[in-house]
Amino acid sequence: MRIRITGARITPVAFVDPPLLNTVGVHQPFALRAIIQLDTEVGLVGLGETYADTRHLARLEAAAAAITGLEVFALNAIRAAIAEKLRGDDAAVGTAGMITTASAVDQVFSPFEVACLDVQGHATGRPVSDLLGGLVRDAVPFSAYLFYKWAAHPHGQPDAWGPALDPAGLVAQATKMIDEYGFTAIKLKGGVFPPDEEMKAIEALHDAFPNHPLRLDPNAAWTPQTSVKVAAGLAGILEYLEDPTPGLDGMAEVAAQSPMPLATNMCVVAFDQLAPAVAKDSVRVVLSDHHYWGGLQRSRLLAGICDTFGLGLSMHSNSHLGISLAAMVHLAGATPNLTYACDTHWPWKTEDVVRAGVLEIRDGAVRVPTTPGLGVEIDDDALGALHEQYVRCGIRNRDDTAYMQSVDPSFKAVSPRW
Amino acid sequence: MRIRITGARITPVAFVDPPLLNTVGVHQPFALRAIIQLDTEVGLVGLGETYADTRHLARLEAAAAAITGLEVFALNAIRAAIAEKLRGDDAAVGTAGMITTASAVDQVFSPFEVACLDVQGHATGRPVSDLLGGLVRDAVPFSAYLFYKWAAHPHGQPDAWGPALDPAGLVAQATKMIDEYGFTAIKLKGGVFPPDEEMKAIEALHDAFPNHPLRLDPNAAWTPQTSVKVAAGLAGILEYLEDPTPGLDGMAEVAAQSPMPLATNMCVVAFDQLAPAVAKDSVRVVLSDHHYWGGLQRSRLLAGICDTFGLGLSMHSNSHLGISLAAMVHLAGATPNLTYACDTHWPWKTEDVVRAGVLEIRDGAVRVPTTPGLGVEIDDDALGALHEQYVRCGIRNRDDTAYMQSVDPSFKAVSPRW
Ligand SMILES: [Mg+2]
Ligand SMILES: [Mg+2]
Repeated sequence: MRIRITGARITPVAFVDPPLLNTVGVHQPFALRAIIQLDTEVGLVGLGETYADTRHLARLEAAAAAITGLEVFALNAIRAAIAEKLRGDDAAVGTAGMITTASAVDQVFSPFEVACLDVQGHATGRPVSDLLGGLVRDAVPFSAYLFYKWAAHPHGQPDAWGPALDPAGLVAQATKMIDEYGFTAIKLKGGVFPPDEEMKAIEALHDAFPNHPLRLDPNAAWTPQTSVKVAAGLAGILEYLEDPTPGLDGMAEVAAQSPMPLATNMCVVAFDQLAPAVAKDSVRVVLSDHHYWGGLQRSRLLAGICDTFGLGLSMHSNSHLGISLAAMVHLAGATPNLTYACDTHWPWKTEDVVRAGVLEIRDGAVRVPTTPGLGVEIDDDALGALHEQYVRCGIRNRDDTAYMQSVDPSFKAVSPRW
Repeated sequence: MRIRITGARITPVAFVDPPLLNTVGVHQPFALRAIIQLDTEVGLVGLGETYADTRHLARLEAAAAAITGLEVFALNAIRAAIAEKLRGDDAAVGTAGMITTASAVDQVFSPFEVACLDVQGHATGRPVSDLLGGLVRDAVPFSAYLFYKWAAHPHGQPDAWGPALDPAGLVAQATKMIDEYGFTAIKLKGGVFPPDEEMKAIEALHDAFPNHPLRLDPNAAWTPQTSVKVAAGLAGILEYLEDPTPGLDGMAEVAAQSPMPLATNMCVVAFDQLAPAVAKDSVRVVLSDHHYWGGLQRSRLLAGICDTFGLGLSMHSNSHLGISLAAMVHLAGATPNLTYACDTHWPWKTEDVVRAGVLEIRDGAVRVPTTPGLGVEIDDDALGALHEQYVRCGIRNRDDTAYMQSVDPSFKAVSPRW
């Protein structure tokens, strides 16, 4: 049975996002995603989810046209067709928050690959995890992903989380999040306040949750010198330190002096950065993310490379919806060496495009769906509503910096900041 | 639909093999293989093929018991069960000719993985290549694999190929093989005669086939110094030079001075050898072989690692039958960066366990079967006959050196020899 792709419906959506702070600014009131519904000649529809910045949407449309007529099992040919279509257009896509140099081909291919695997799963009666070698864990642990945040967006209503602008605020946030979801690891997005304050926050979290592995991610806000000082100060407290400083050379300089492993989703975000990272010994842990590593099978390749070269493997998250979470848990559930709790922005969102009830965080983990394909279904009304919200909200590209500058005109995105 | 493994029938077979010479001796009159028939609860039977030395057979039986009850899509769990079963028994398996340090787990897992993919393919109506990302080429090119050889085994009848003990004999052998199969690349197994003689043979082949890429593989018969001299002498003639000298350090020393790329199936035969090989820049081309790289999906991982670290990829062959050839062409057909013609001993054999007609070398290439699974079927009579031959022939372990010593008691396997 051949299953040819007859087209793809690409729907940009916007969902409410709290004012989460990072070193380049603050999350806008709405986060954007593109939902892919891949149509096939047999009537099966595969789902994918990715970024929705304007330039990326144009590439997605071009890719959808390029792969129409190909077969859902022909993933090599599908990627080649997309690479051919984007030839000469392989500049970085500025759609992934802190990710700036990932391969455009892999970012565009990713949601189509996920959608093809979803179709393959439905056609063969198999969960996507079975197409990735089968589950090695039934449930995937995630970390409590803490953010410094305002109580509300400018001119907006306070959200359910309250403000978090100091150690006490973060401990309260962690308490609420862990009470609700049972997380057994904690990650703090840093780079917002001077390093001394963020160290105090980590120490407060360590005091409040002494058995929770802790991570800090300042998104390259620090010089190597500052990074080394923070690393020394948090020895024995941090599980890993994520992207303290920019670049493979800076990271290597810090890594040589850091008592804990360095992790990254900034200086190693594409396959061509792995060889130099290994040669320089810049990082000990790579955060995978199927959205820019080229889908689930290429994320498995990344996992195998990490295993082969003695690197740890964790998982990165941007603001995302349920299709992405489903893909993440199928991948993580089938990846033996993914031994760290994964990141997710899941608790921060209040809206989705998939029907509720399949994906839930309990005891800090998400059970991998065992029904065919990804195991999630589109809620057509919700998709329509979030698309309407996209149309109305006016946001067309993520820009945390400009949004922060609308509040504080003196704000500048600089790296390193301290 | 679950498809559980109910057991595996492991049948050692022996097939007639000509007296092919190499640096450690000469091929015995029969080559051994083990044929795996993996049984499942739904009646589908998956095929695999691997080495058949005594110790390997024992491991295969242990592995078959360990994976009975598991599901054919649960490849992660199957590999883990085999690893657990072989724990403490992970010494090198001396079954792969020149391969001595490959992972026992990956060698034992391989035929079961191939058999599971065969079942998956039959269950889903898909050729195995579709389970590996789909074909990037419809036919897989192979090289004419030349050997120095005797006219006959001691006390045996001459085979159809005649002797090849000098340049003229090899040119005649190449002419016959290329006339019959249409090969467009040539590989010579060297390490048999002093390097000067083998250089003359390569030059004669180059004169006779000026448009055929040429490779020479002395199986680490030379010192680094000798290797550098040969490499210099064959500049512009060899496509790559395979394993001139033993070890990652020796290869790195030669590589730094060699005008052509160095290739290997000796110093990089397991995942844990990749990081040091990359660090030392020992080789430019890795010869994959799913029999010791842990099956087809782990061979894809190897391919991805080679792509990521700037290494070329070719494919190694031991003496093998049709199940292995089918697996090789599904893998090679679905591997974008496998851009060299693959090795195969196929022309040297006169017997098989699979039904004829599916796999043929035409214009130097094998068309990848497009029917479900591997696309080959066992010929029960042939399997029975080759098993009888195994029982009768008395050979239980491959030992080219002892066989050579039965003819020439003074022969010693030394590396490097020159
Ligand atoms: Mg990060
Ligand atoms: Mg070789």
